[in-house]
Amino acid sequence: MDSSAPAWLTPPADVNALDPAIWPASVHRDGAGELVIAGHTATELVTQFGSPLYLIDEDDFRARARGFATAFAGWHVAYAGKAFLSRHVARWVDEAGLGLDVCSGNELAVALAAGFPPARITLHGNNKSLTELAAAIEAPVGQIVVDCGEEIDRIEALAAARHQTVNVLVRVTPGVEANTHEYIATAVEDQKFGFSIHSGRALEALLRCHGEPHMNLTGIHLHIGSQVFDTQAYALAAKRAIDLLAAFRDATGVELTTLNLGGGFGIAYTAADDPLGADRQAAGLAPVIEANRLAAGLGPLTLAIEPGRAICGPGSLALYTVGVVKPIELDDGTTRTYVAVDGGMSDNPRTALYHAEYTAVLANRSSTSTPALARVVGKHCESGDILVHDVYLGADVRPGDLVAVPGALAYARSLASNYNHATKPAVVAVGERGAHLVLRRETLADLLALDVDPGARDDRGTAGKEG
Amino acid sequence: MDSSAPAWLTPPADVNALDPAIWPASVHRDGAGELVIAGHTATELVTQFGSPLYLIDEDDFRARARGFATAFAGWHVAYAGKAFLSRHVARWVDEAGLGLDVCSGNELAVALAAGFPPARITLHGNNKSLTELAAAIEAPVGQIVVDCGEEIDRIEALAAARHQTVNVLVRVTPGVEANTHEYIATAVEDQKFGFSIHSGRALEALLRCHGEPHMNLTGIHLHIGSQVFDTQAYALAAKRAIDLLAAFRDATGVELTTLNLGGGFGIAYTAADDPLGADRQAAGLAPVIEANRLAAGLGPLTLAIEPGRAICGPGSLALYTVGVVKPIELDDGTTRTYVAVDGGMSDNPRTALYHAEYTAVLANRSSTSTPALARVVGKHCESGDILVHDVYLGADVRPGDLVAVPGALAYARSLASNYNHATKPAVVAVGERGAHLVLRRETLADLLALDVDPGARDDRGTAGKEG
Repeated sequence: MDSSAPAWLTPPADVNALDPAIWPASVHRDGAGELVIAGHTATELVTQFGSPLYLIDEDDFRARARGFATAFAGWHVAYAGKAFLSRHVARWVDEAGLGLDVCSGNELAVALAAGFPPARITLHGNNKSLTELAAAIEAPVGQIVVDCGEEIDRIEALAAARHQTVNVLVRVTPGVEANTHEYIATAVEDQKFGFSIHSGRALEALLRCHGEPHMNLTGIHLHIGSQVFDTQAYALAAKRAIDLLAAFRDATGVELTTLNLGGGFGIAYTAADDPLGADRQAAGLAPVIEANRLAAGLGPLTLAIEPGRAICGPGSLALYTVGVVKPIELDDGTTRTYVAVDGGMSDNPRTALYHAEYTAVLANRSSTSTPALARVVGKHCESGDILVHDVYLGADVRPGDLVAVPGALAYARSLASNYNHATKPAVVAVGERGAHLVLRRETLADLLALDVDPGARDDRGTAGKEG
Repeated sequence: MDSSAPAWLTPPADVNALDPAIWPASVHRDGAGELVIAGHTATELVTQFGSPLYLIDEDDFRARARGFATAFAGWHVAYAGKAFLSRHVARWVDEAGLGLDVCSGNELAVALAAGFPPARITLHGNNKSLTELAAAIEAPVGQIVVDCGEEIDRIEALAAARHQTVNVLVRVTPGVEANTHEYIATAVEDQKFGFSIHSGRALEALLRCHGEPHMNLTGIHLHIGSQVFDTQAYALAAKRAIDLLAAFRDATGVELTTLNLGGGFGIAYTAADDPLGADRQAAGLAPVIEANRLAAGLGPLTLAIEPGRAICGPGSLALYTVGVVKPIELDDGTTRTYVAVDGGMSDNPRTALYHAEYTAVLANRSSTSTPALARVVGKHCESGDILVHDVYLGADVRPGDLVAVPGALAYARSLASNYNHATKPAVVAVGERGAHLVLRRETLADLLALDVDPGARDDRGTAGKEG
């Protein structure tokens, strides 16, 4: 046993194996041992599209979107665009019949540019600008999730000026800790989102929205966190939300019918993760919610969920090219092999940001060696520039090899930076349509387009020109 | 005493005061109470250039660059471009007579595009590509810092093919813990950078470089971490490095003369930080290094440092516009005021990434209220989207106010993302030349330029076209 490895990680019997719980079904090794993704070898994809490279199995994405719709039949299912959004992705979501969540005016603009039906769009956000609210009302989107008191006034004023009625949900915090990392836990009270149920602010907000002449209040929304692996926290949050709906009915005589439980459904990044999957999530949640609804004496509810990562993550991976392999002797006498690749925290900051765990495999060939404890690091000038903290790779890993990291598109591309002037890798979809670009690779010219030439004198910006 | 505030934070006697240890000297409040930066009011700058906005006091940057050169007279001082680099910045560094460190081919390209003299450029990086090494040798840069064995072979081969000699330093890890956050501590052994002194690998690497016909080995380089607030760790690292230089002399009869101590000099983000400043750093380091050099029987050394944040950080700040103010009752009966602004972890991920602390003040006016414990958060769909964890702001803070966060350009713009399709704010320099753009604001059109239109069919990329 390697004392430098975390407890959950054990040396694999076969370092070339692909755990089906982690890898997309379309990924396998060919006769030569090379990784094949939806019919395309890793080498072929990197040759055509460059390295590093994000890949998304388009058919996997579409199947998971439809899978959620089937598992949660009768519920409203919307894809959370913040996980990964582009015009192509918006089309896939549309064609799967799901709704789409956007968190900003620009996400809304991307969706509309893709022709996504505005009526199936929900606008989220704790601090929507007047411009964003106006764009959403003008679209008009299907609903806006109201997050604070100022926003009630702003939406009412904008809607009144346009003689429109706006569908709204009220974002509430049920005070449920989803047992996840602090930075992605969103339902405890001490946070920026929503109205607390416990303090009474949530009921107040519902009553205010109910009284606004240009608002159609349909129900409540909550979100308990990310990478959640059971249904208990959802069920408890739903119970508190249903009690709130009952309190609103008692106060007004009106029953609100929509209960949106948000997203946060966990996916498997490593063998230590055991996600429920859509079917078991639905089977676990529906009866508990139904029992609570009946106990509260409420009529039928329109339930809703918003998976993001659970749709776009499992079919995604990132390919990197190895540049440097450096064995480091550790204090305990073991060795850690640092495998430095041509990307890093610029294209996937999740490891540094959330202490997220990933796994990785050699992609251009099988290894013929024993497993060696490795750490996949990037090329940035920072020691925290780590992609995969702990993974067993074949000890023969060498410069020029390709390494694949499963799940490394969801939130990774969304959070990607240009640290050290790195350009964002391309995103390529693979599947029945073949391999095609979803987002092209950024270039140095793109970065320099923002960089004002000190030789030129025309550098007096105006807010209008800039905005 | 507010039990929800951290121990280091106390309610200020004057919530409008500007601590001179934290704010640039050019920042003050005018008669109306508004923040003035190098002669420009916060409102004027936001009106002209938009919000959020990064500001850099150009004169402060230039003065700090010259200040390091003066304090470390006789040393080589290079600005670490990774902290913040653009063509304008490269010019300022050049005009101050400093060297410039780059960590990637693209940073090198920016420096060369600004006309920076290549002989004063140093190329860093744990995994430089062949393309990057070739560009550096072609420039030719003043020196390359060698980080691994593969790189010795690569540089020698590239240099030999061009019949050039390349100046190199060897990056070593002295095994010194700089008492800083794990993610930005780079001199302990279990990390991706350099050759360990302790294991003997560093001496091996020096001997290899010394034996390469197309390498001119000048010395060693180390970097102990970031936000370091004393000289002890530098002094200990220097002692180990000097012992290594002595071991190399004993093995070869040759004395290497360059000792580069890297960067990491801390700056004050909050009242809890007490940086030494260039003068005290130099005064603290020079005699210790000289004593070690004499004890080792070495001749005169060429010493070098690489400040980045310490030059670009203290003269910088970010301006945001408040959108939502939300008081949250905490379990202990106190209240935390969440102040949501129009930026967030997209334009400054340091708070989320490093648990970094910042402070903030109202910028468009003075407050007439008592201090209230506040948290400045962004507008992203994530509860960890925090800019300033804990700060006292006037309790009258309200939507439409401007908030200024000092120091919030260094590494913030370098690490900025497009999360939720946020566009990167403009960077504006203020100073004697007036206010002028350094980096223009990104636009939605910039983001859509990467987003392949599903309506078009020309989406088969090639690596060449993309790269």
